[in-house]
Amino acid sequence: MSVLIVGSVALDSVESPAGSVKEALGGAATYASIAARTLHDDVAIVGVVGDDFPEEHVRLLEQRGVNLTGLERAPGRTFRWAGRYHEDTSQRDTLDTQLNVFAHFSPRIPPELRAAELLFLANIDPELQLSVLDQVDDPQMVFCDTMNFWIQGKRNKVLAVLARSDVAFLNDEEARMLTGQPSLLRAASAVQALGPSHVIIKKGPHGAELHSPEGVFYCPAFPVPNAADPTGAGDAFAGGVIGHLAEAGEDSDEEMRRAVVVGTVVASYCVEGFSMSGLLRAGPVTVRERYEELQRMSAIPEP
Amino acid sequence: MSVLIVGSVALDSVESPAGSVKEALGGAATYASIAARTLHDDVAIVGVVGDDFPEEHVRLLEQRGVNLTGLERAPGRTFRWAGRYHEDTSQRDTLDTQLNVFAHFSPRIPPELRAAELLFLANIDPELQLSVLDQVDDPQMVFCDTMNFWIQGKRNKVLAVLARSDVAFLNDEEARMLTGQPSLLRAASAVQALGPSHVIIKKGPHGAELHSPEGVFYCPAFPVPNAADPTGAGDAFAGGVIGHLAEAGEDSDEEMRRAVVVGTVVASYCVEGFSMSGLLRAGPVTVRERYEELQRMSAIPEP
Repeated sequence: MSVLIVGSVALDSVESPAGSVKEALGGAATYASIAARTLHDDVAIVGVVGDDFPEEHVRLLEQRGVNLTGLERAPGRTFRWAGRYHEDTSQRDTLDTQLNVFAHFSPRIPPELRAAELLFLANIDPELQLSVLDQVDDPQMVFCDTMNFWIQGKRNKVLAVLARSDVAFLNDEEARMLTGQPSLLRAASAVQALGPSHVIIKKGPHGAELHSPEGVFYCPAFPVPNAADPTGAGDAFAGGVIGHLAEAGEDSDEEMRRAVVVGTVVASYCVEGFSMSGLLRAGPVTVRERYEELQRMSAIPEP
Repeated sequence: MSVLIVGSVALDSVESPAGSVKEALGGAATYASIAARTLHDDVAIVGVVGDDFPEEHVRLLEQRGVNLTGLERAPGRTFRWAGRYHEDTSQRDTLDTQLNVFAHFSPRIPPELRAAELLFLANIDPELQLSVLDQVDDPQMVFCDTMNFWIQGKRNKVLAVLARSDVAFLNDEEARMLTGQPSLLRAASAVQALGPSHVIIKKGPHGAELHSPEGVFYCPAFPVPNAADPTGAGDAFAGGVIGHLAEAGEDSDEEMRRAVVVGTVVASYCVEGFSMSGLLRAGPVTVRERYEELQRMSAIPEP
C-alpha cells in the first residue's frame, strides 16, 4: 500500500549526556519516512526545506528509497530546532526553534501522490493537516499526530482533524490535555469518541498503548540502556507502525498489535544514535530479533 | 509454605478526589498480609499497635485468617499517617506522620514463627530488618522493601539487608537513587550485584518489571479508571507476589512471572477502595479473571 507522510524536515542541534550534534538531519517527516521505509518500499513525503538544506541529506533520503517528489525547496533557511536532554533522557529543554521556511509552509500534494492509501499527518498546524485531507483522494487509513501547542491554541482544528482520522497518535500528556481525563483508559475512550477508531498513546520509556474497538493492548518499550538521543522517537514509532501496516496490507486487531510492536522496536533503534544514525541500523532482521525479544519479555504464562 | 511479614500497622487518614477516610486500617504489614492471605492460608505478621487500636481492625485481620501471634500491643498511640492524593492519583502529599508506638518498635519474632519459609521485610528501619534476619531460622526466600528515607539516611544498613535478600522490591525512584543509574535496566543489574537474585521494580500506573537471572519481564498495570486510594498498593502488590509463590511452592522464572501478574492484579483491587475495602474484594475467582484479562491485554502476536 502506498504511504504518504506530511510533516517537518529539519536541521536539529542536540546535546545529551551521550554527546552532541549540530544541524543534523531531523524533522517528523524524515524520521517517520525512514522508519516506514525500513518495512515497506512505497513511502513518499511532502515537506519543505530551505535553499541551505545540505545535498547529503537529500542523498540519504534518496538512498533510503524515500520518494521525494513532494519535497519542496523554498528560498530561505531550513527549519531548525535545538534541544538539550537531561541525565534522565525522558526530560529535555528546547533551546531554540527557528521555523524559517516552515513558517510559510502550505503543503501541496503532487497529483501522483494524491491516491495514497495510507496518509500520515505528522505534527504540523492542524489547518495544514486539514488542507492535506482536502487534497488527497480517499486514503484507506488516515493517521494523525499533534502536540500541546495546537491542542491549546487551535483546539477546534485539532478536533476537526481527529474527526477525519482513523488512528490518532498522542503522548500521555497530550491525551490528558485534549480530554481532561487523568486516566489514560478514559482519555483514550474520549479520543475515540471524537472520531478515530484507534488511539495509540505513546508513553516514552513506559511503552505504548493501543486502544481499538477490540480492547486495549499494552506494549512495553524495548529497553535501551544507552539512550543517546530520543529526538524523533515518536515519529519513528509512528513510521514503524504505518510501514508495518502498509506491508501487511490489513488492519485486523492482531496486525495493529504487531504494528505497535514493530513501531516500538524501530523507535528503540532511533534513540540509540543521534539524528538518523540509530534508525539506519534497523532492518528486517534486526527488527524481527527485537520483536521476538519483546515478545519474550512480556509473555504472561497461563495462570 | 509459611509466610511471615514484618512491618507497620497503622491508622491512615486519606483524602483523594474520590473521597476521604479518617483513621482507617492501614500499614504495610496489614496490606501485604491481607493480600497474601487472598492466595495462601499460612500468613503471619509481626508488628506493633498502641492501646488505642480499634478492636474491629483486629477482628478484620482475624476473620481474614492472618496469624496475629506476633502483633504486639504497646502502651501509647498507634502509628498514624495522613495524606492527600492529587487529581492525578500517582501524586500525593503527606500531611502528617506520627510514629507513636512505632518509634520504639523492636520486632520480636515469636518462637513458633521463626521457621517461616518466606520472609517479607516490609519498609521499616533497615536496622530492624537486620534484627529480624538474626532472629529467624533460615527462610527459603527473603523479600525486602525499603524507601528513600532509609536509602539516604542509612545506606549501609540498606545494603546489608539487600546482601541477605533474595528478592528486592523497589520503586523506580528508589532503584535510581540507590544505584545512581537513570536506566532501570542498569539500576536493576546494579541492585542484583548487591545480593538479590531477583529485583522487582514497581512503577505504579506503569506496571512492574521483574529482573531475574533469566532476563527481564515487563508486566503492565491492570488499568483502573476509578482509582480511589493508591495507599498500600505497593505493599498489596508485594503481598500478592509472596502469597502466590507460597501457594505455588516454587520459584521458577515462570512462577515468578505469574507471581508478578498476581501481585499486579491484587494491587489493582487495592487502589479501587479506601483502606482495605478494595483489597477485600479480591478473591481466587476475581484474581484469575483479571489475570486472564491482563494476559490478553499484553499478548504480542507471533511476528
